[in-house]
Amino acid sequence: MQLLESYITKYGKALPGDILKVDSFLNFQIDVELLDRLACDIYQHFKDKNINKILTVEASGIALSTLVAKYFNCKLVFAKKSKTLNMSDDFYSEKCFSFTHKTQNNLMVSKSFLTSEDNVLVVDDFLANGEACNSLLSIINQANAKLQGIAIAVEKAFQGAGDRFRSSGIDLYSLAIIESMNEGKIEFR
Amino acid sequence: MQLLESYITKYGKALPGDILKVDSFLNFQIDVELLDRLACDIYQHFKDKNINKILTVEASGIALSTLVAKYFNCKLVFAKKSKTLNMSDDFYSEKCFSFTHKTQNNLMVSKSFLTSEDNVLVVDDFLANGEACNSLLSIINQANAKLQGIAIAVEKAFQGAGDRFRSSGIDLYSLAIIESMNEGKIEFR
Repeated sequence: MQLLESYITKYGKALPGDILKVDSFLNFQIDVELLDRLACDIYQHFKDKNINKILTVEASGIALSTLVAKYFNCKLVFAKKSKTLNMSDDFYSEKCFSFTHKTQNNLMVSKSFLTSEDNVLVVDDFLANGEACNSLLSIINQANAKLQGIAIAVEKAFQGAGDRFRSSGIDLYSLAIIESMNEGKIEFR
Repeated sequence: MQLLESYITKYGKALPGDILKVDSFLNFQIDVELLDRLACDIYQHFKDKNINKILTVEASGIALSTLVAKYFNCKLVFAKKSKTLNMSDDFYSEKCFSFTHKTQNNLMVSKSFLTSEDNVLVVDDFLANGEACNSLLSIINQANAKLQGIAIAVEKAFQGAGDRFRSSGIDLYSLAIIESMNEGKIEFR
């Protein structure tokens, strides 16, 4: 998507360690007008897939997912990384290593919020090594829900997970695909 | 707000330890259509205040804040609870004790995303003992930004923070105010 690529080129920074800093518009300060354009585009791609639930991970996936859920007029569920007092003990869980936090978490989704009736679209801001998505797919499997696709704002293709998902037959739709970030220069596919 | 109160009465559960469980529509599974109605109501209350930035805390405040920011057509910033690799070292921070996690965090906002030019509306899903809001107000102060008000979906009035904010002159707008939750019975103000 041209618009997102132009934002990444203009405001993004490729840092050492394969880190793309886009926190002025995507995942710390959030340009809601831009995200709404991304959400609309995601809706256009998946609108015939009978999706009734959006699934993401806290925290930075929530803003885009909220706007996507609004287009689909469906519920949004986010996987939690730690158990809270108001959470029941009846949940699906899967371990997940965070690239940006360098920590291991358990992603958790209450069993009552994901069932075999659900046609699920997974949405996230970033796809790098695919850890978060893999954990969400495991949780969807545990719930016997149906995965209809994955929508991502920024895919870092050189970390490989995107092409692995595509070759396994998953409908992965990434709005910007970064092929390389060598020496601070961002190249799109 | 009648609509939110009816959701709380119908789907909410008052649990021991002053815990209100509304995770089927507000902060785990999210009813985006409902949240959009709340966001519109918040916009109506604050629309003449020249607000140019929404500030919240990850994670459960992000969904409502995204929709509020869309009405104001302004940027959203969320305070982070832990430092990520893609975050610079130049941030405001304030400690914060989480009621639902029972953990102490440092809330952090990058200095570039909050400045003395900003007219800020703080938005969150819950107001209980006011820890998160107090920390956000401290961060707004550190940035010399201007606080225009606080918008909350559910205020637990019996925990006292709401009335403290009001008596200090802050424009606090809570869409549902719970006066008591004795023996599982939820009473609204």
